[in-house]
Amino acid sequence: MTNGAQALMKTLVDSGVEVCFTNPGTSEMHFVAALDSEPNMRAVLALFEGVATGAADGYARMAGKPAATLLHLGCGLGNGLANLHNARKGKVPVVNIVGDHATYHVPYDAQLQSDIETVARNVSPGFVRTSASTGELCQDAADAVTAARGLPGQVATLILPADVSWSEGGTPCKAPESKPAPTADDATIKNAAEAIRSGGKTALLLGGQALRKPTLMAAARIAAHNGTTLFAETFPTRIERGAGLPPVERIAYLAELATLQLSEFDHLILVDAKAPVSFFAYPGKESYLVPDTCKVHTLASPDQDSTASLSRLAEMLGAENATPAVQPAARPGPPRGKLTAEKVCKAVGHLMPEDAIIVDEAITSGLMLNALTAGAPKHDLLTLTGGAIGQGLPNAVGAAVACPDRPVIALIGDGTAMYTNQALWTMARENLNVTSIIFNNASYSILNVELERVGAEEAGDKAKSQLDISGPVIDFSRLAQGMGVHAIRVSTGEEMAKALDYALTNPGPHLIEAVVPESLNGVKRKILPWLLRTLPSLPRPLSKTLKKKIAP
Amino acid sequence: MTNGAQALMKTLVDSGVEVCFTNPGTSEMHFVAALDSEPNMRAVLALFEGVATGAADGYARMAGKPAATLLHLGCGLGNGLANLHNARKGKVPVVNIVGDHATYHVPYDAQLQSDIETVARNVSPGFVRTSASTGELCQDAADAVTAARGLPGQVATLILPADVSWSEGGTPCKAPESKPAPTADDATIKNAAEAIRSGGKTALLLGGQALRKPTLMAAARIAAHNGTTLFAETFPTRIERGAGLPPVERIAYLAELATLQLSEFDHLILVDAKAPVSFFAYPGKESYLVPDTCKVHTLASPDQDSTASLSRLAEMLGAENATPAVQPAARPGPPRGKLTAEKVCKAVGHLMPEDAIIVDEAITSGLMLNALTAGAPKHDLLTLTGGAIGQGLPNAVGAAVACPDRPVIALIGDGTAMYTNQALWTMARENLNVTSIIFNNASYSILNVELERVGAEEAGDKAKSQLDISGPVIDFSRLAQGMGVHAIRVSTGEEMAKALDYALTNPGPHLIEAVVPESLNGVKRKILPWLLRTLPSLPRPLSKTLKKKIAP
Repeated sequence: MTNGAQALMKTLVDSGVEVCFTNPGTSEMHFVAALDSEPNMRAVLALFEGVATGAADGYARMAGKPAATLLHLGCGLGNGLANLHNARKGKVPVVNIVGDHATYHVPYDAQLQSDIETVARNVSPGFVRTSASTGELCQDAADAVTAARGLPGQVATLILPADVSWSEGGTPCKAPESKPAPTADDATIKNAAEAIRSGGKTALLLGGQALRKPTLMAAARIAAHNGTTLFAETFPTRIERGAGLPPVERIAYLAELATLQLSEFDHLILVDAKAPVSFFAYPGKESYLVPDTCKVHTLASPDQDSTASLSRLAEMLGAENATPAVQPAARPGPPRGKLTAEKVCKAVGHLMPEDAIIVDEAITSGLMLNALTAGAPKHDLLTLTGGAIGQGLPNAVGAAVACPDRPVIALIGDGTAMYTNQALWTMARENLNVTSIIFNNASYSILNVELERVGAEEAGDKAKSQLDISGPVIDFSRLAQGMGVHAIRVSTGEEMAKALDYALTNPGPHLIEAVVPESLNGVKRKILPWLLRTLPSLPRPLSKTLKKKIAP
Repeated sequence: MTNGAQALMKTLVDSGVEVCFTNPGTSEMHFVAALDSEPNMRAVLALFEGVATGAADGYARMAGKPAATLLHLGCGLGNGLANLHNARKGKVPVVNIVGDHATYHVPYDAQLQSDIETVARNVSPGFVRTSASTGELCQDAADAVTAARGLPGQVATLILPADVSWSEGGTPCKAPESKPAPTADDATIKNAAEAIRSGGKTALLLGGQALRKPTLMAAARIAAHNGTTLFAETFPTRIERGAGLPPVERIAYLAELATLQLSEFDHLILVDAKAPVSFFAYPGKESYLVPDTCKVHTLASPDQDSTASLSRLAEMLGAENATPAVQPAARPGPPRGKLTAEKVCKAVGHLMPEDAIIVDEAITSGLMLNALTAGAPKHDLLTLTGGAIGQGLPNAVGAAVACPDRPVIALIGDGTAMYTNQALWTMARENLNVTSIIFNNASYSILNVELERVGAEEAGDKAKSQLDISGPVIDFSRLAQGMGVHAIRVSTGEEMAKALDYALTNPGPHLIEAVVPESLNGVKRKILPWLLRTLPSLPRPLSKTLKKKIAP
C-alpha cells in the first residue's frame, strides 16, 4: 500500500522536483518518513524556514526547474515568506508543501492552528490549494508543479493536511511537460522594429528570462546593427555576464540615477521586463521613472519566449548576422592596503574562476562589484529580486545544491546576513562549495542614505541609533565557526585576496568577514555627487548631454 | 507643524505604548526620525523581525500593556509572523506598525509591494487597518491600541503608508481607558457551584489571566474548601508560581498523559481557558481530550474578569475565608557529575532568586523544570503559547525590557534557539539582564518522539537525518560571543551551577551552553512508560485508580 506522502514523493520526483529544502514539524512526519521511499528525492535540512525558501529560490534560478520546500503550518510559511516574496518577484518557480493539522483536527483550534491560505496568498496568488483527500493529493501536486514552472514561473503552495498525508490510497501521477512559450506576434515585432528604425534613440530593457546568453546574443546583434542600447532590469533574477558575453547596463537602484539613464531615449522596448519605477516613493518625487517623452513598447511579456521574439525582431531588422559586441576579458589587479568595500569587489574580480555563481546582496558595499567583475570570466549573477533582505546566503545554498561543480561566491551585507545566518549551518552540513563574503561595516548603511532621501535628515540620536549596528559589532567569523563553517576575518587587501584564493582552491564552505568602513562615509548630505561618481563605472560611454547634466 | 509620524508617536505614548521593538526600512524612516520628538518612547532595535515581535509579546506579558513593533512592509511582517502567532494564541496585546509604500506608489507594483493585509489577517483577525490619511492616522492608532489591550488581548495591525507618515497635519489623540471586564453572571456562577457541590469529582481549569496570584488564591480557596483540583492550561501565557503560591497542575502536552490526568473527573470548570485538545492529531487517536463522562462548564470566558468571577464562586460556596494550600519553600540541592537536562533544571531550582522571570522553551529538555522549581522562590513562568518555536529568546528580551529590576532566565532548546538567535545581539546592545541557557543535545528531540507517535516509526536514514542537527554540532557559546554576549559551555553539574551563579550575581546578558544528552535517549519505542514516569513529578498525589492504570 502507498500512503499519501509516499505517492506525493513519487509524483514530485516524476514531475522533475528532485530536491526538497525542509524544516519539518510533527504534521510533516509522514512526508519525512516517505523520503526513504524515493531515492531520487534529496532532502536538505534548514534550521530556519527562510533558509529553506531562499534555497529553493536559488536552486530554481540555477537548475531551471523548481525545488520543493517542506514547511510547518502557517508559522513555518510565515518564517519563509520573505524569501518566497523574492522568488515571486523574480518569477522563480517554487513548490511549497505546507503541512497542516489533520482535517478533522482543525475545528479544535489547537495551538498551531491558523489560516494558512491567507498567508500563502501573499506569495502564491496564482496557486494555493489545500489538498482535500489522499485520492486527490497527487493530482493536486502535479497541478502545483505545472503552475510553478510555467512561464512566468511562480510560487505554488500546496497545503497538506496530516491525514491526507498518512492515509493509504495515494496514486502517483506526473505533471505534464510544459507547453512551449509563444513567440510575440508579427504586429508586435513590427511595431518594435519601426521604433528602432524611427531615427529616435532606442533601448531594449531586458529582464527575467531575457538575461541569459541566447537572448542576450540576439539583443546584442540588434544593438550592433541598429545602435540600440541594452539595459537590464535593476535586480535580475539571473544574468549571464563576463568576458565573451554582451555587456548590459543595469537600471540603477536610485531613482535619481535611473532617471538620468533613461533621459535620452525616445523608445524603450520591454523584453520580459516592466517599465522602471522607483524602488520606494520619496516626497515630491516621481514613482514612474520613464520620461514623458519616451514611448514604451512591449516586445515580449514574461509568459512569452523572449529569445525567439528577439531573434524574429533581429531578422526583421536584418541584424541576424550582425556581430554582437562582447565584453573583452579583463581583470582588476590584486587589492592592496587597508580594506574597503571596493577592494573586496576588486579581489573578487581579480580571482573569480570561470563559471562562478555570484550572489550579490552586498547592498551599498557592492556598488563597485559590477564594474570590477565586468570583464571577469563568464559567470552568473543572482540578485535581490524582491527587496526582502536575507536572500543572499540561502540563495547561495540553493545555487550550490543545483550546481555542485560550480563555485558560489556570495557577497552579503552585515545587516542582511543576520536575517538568515542559519544558512551557514546548512552549508557546513551539506559541505557546499560556497564562499560567503560578509562586508562588516557595522551599519544599516543604505538606511542612512534613505533617511536623507525621504527628507528626514534632521534625525536625532535615537533615530540614528536605529541604523547603527555597531554596539556590539558582530563577529561574523565566530558566528560562522559556531555553525561549523571555516571562517576568517580580514582587514587588508592582501589578506582578502589570500583568504579568497584559499577558499577558491579548497572547495567547501568558507566565510570571509571583510572589515570595511561604511561605503558611503562622507557622502551624507551630498548624495547626488556620489550618485554621479558611480556613472563612469557604467559600461556605456556618456553622451555629451549626460556629461553636461552631471558636471559638478 | 506635526507630521503623521510625530503625531502617531505622541498618540502611542499618550495611550500607554512606551516601547517600540523595531526593524525598520526606508518606508519607516519618518517614524524612525520621529523617535526623537517623543522622549517617552523607547526604541529597541532587533536584527530580525521575529525578535521584535517576540519581544513585544514578552514585554506585554510582563508589563501588562502592549508595546509596538515597527516592521517593514509585508516581508517584515512575514518574518515576524510566527511570534505574533504565539502572541495571538496567548491573547497578548501587541500593536504592529507596518510601514507600507506611499499610497500613490502602490499601483506601480515596485519590488517590495505585496498584499500586507492578507498576511496580517493570519495573526490580527480582529484588527487590521491601513491608515488612509494623516488626518485619520492618530484615531486609527488609538483604535489599534484599544483593540489590542481589551480583554482578551490581541494583536492589532496598523499599516502605515509612507506618505501618511510623512505628510503634515497629524493631530495626536489618546486611546480611552479600557472598560472594566464584566464578571460572570449569577446563573453561570450558580451552575459552577452546583457542579462542585454535586458530589462528583471536579476540577477548575485555569488559563489566560487566571494564572496570576489573585485569581490563583481565589481558586485555591475553593480547592481547600471543596476538594476541587486545580489545573492550568498546557502552555500558560504567564503563570505565577513557587513558594507561597498555590500549586497548579498543568495539563500535559502529550495527549496520552492529558487523557490520564482528566480521566477521573465528572466536572471540568473552565476559567479563561478552553477544554483541552491534542496539540497535534495522531492516526486513530482523539483530538478532544475530555472524557465523555466529564461535563464541561465555563465559569469565565477570556473577555471576563476571572478573579471577580472566581471570588463570587468562592462566596457562593462559602469558601471565601478558607485557607488556600500553598507551595512550601523547597529547593533541590546542587547538581553534580555529568550534565543532563534534568541537572540543568536542578541548577535553576537550586539558584534562582526571588522574582525571577523564567522563559521556558526547552521542549523535551525542560520536562523536569516544573518539578524542580515548584518550591523555588516565587517567580513568573512564560511558555510557548502558540507552538511556533523561536519564541523564547525574543520573549526574554521583552520581559527584561518590561522588568529591568528582575532577572530573566531563558531555558531554550538548541533547535528552537536557532530560529531567532539574533535576539542575543539585542540582549547585548541593551545590556539586558537575561541568562539564556541553551540545552545542546544536537537534535530535534521532540520530533524523534513525534515520528513514532504519528505511526511513522519505520523511518529510514534519510528521514532520521531530518531530525538530527549534529552535523555539525552548533557551538552556541561561539555564536553568542559573536553577537557580544558573555558565554560559556558547561558539561558537568558543578560547572553548570557555577556558571549560573556567576550569571545571576553579575547582571547583564549571559549565555550558558549546557551540553546534554538527548533527554529522551533510550525511551524510543516505549513512549508510554516514559510518560508515566513523569507522573510522579506532578504536584497532585496519585489516586489509586490512576496508580493502577500506570502500574508497569
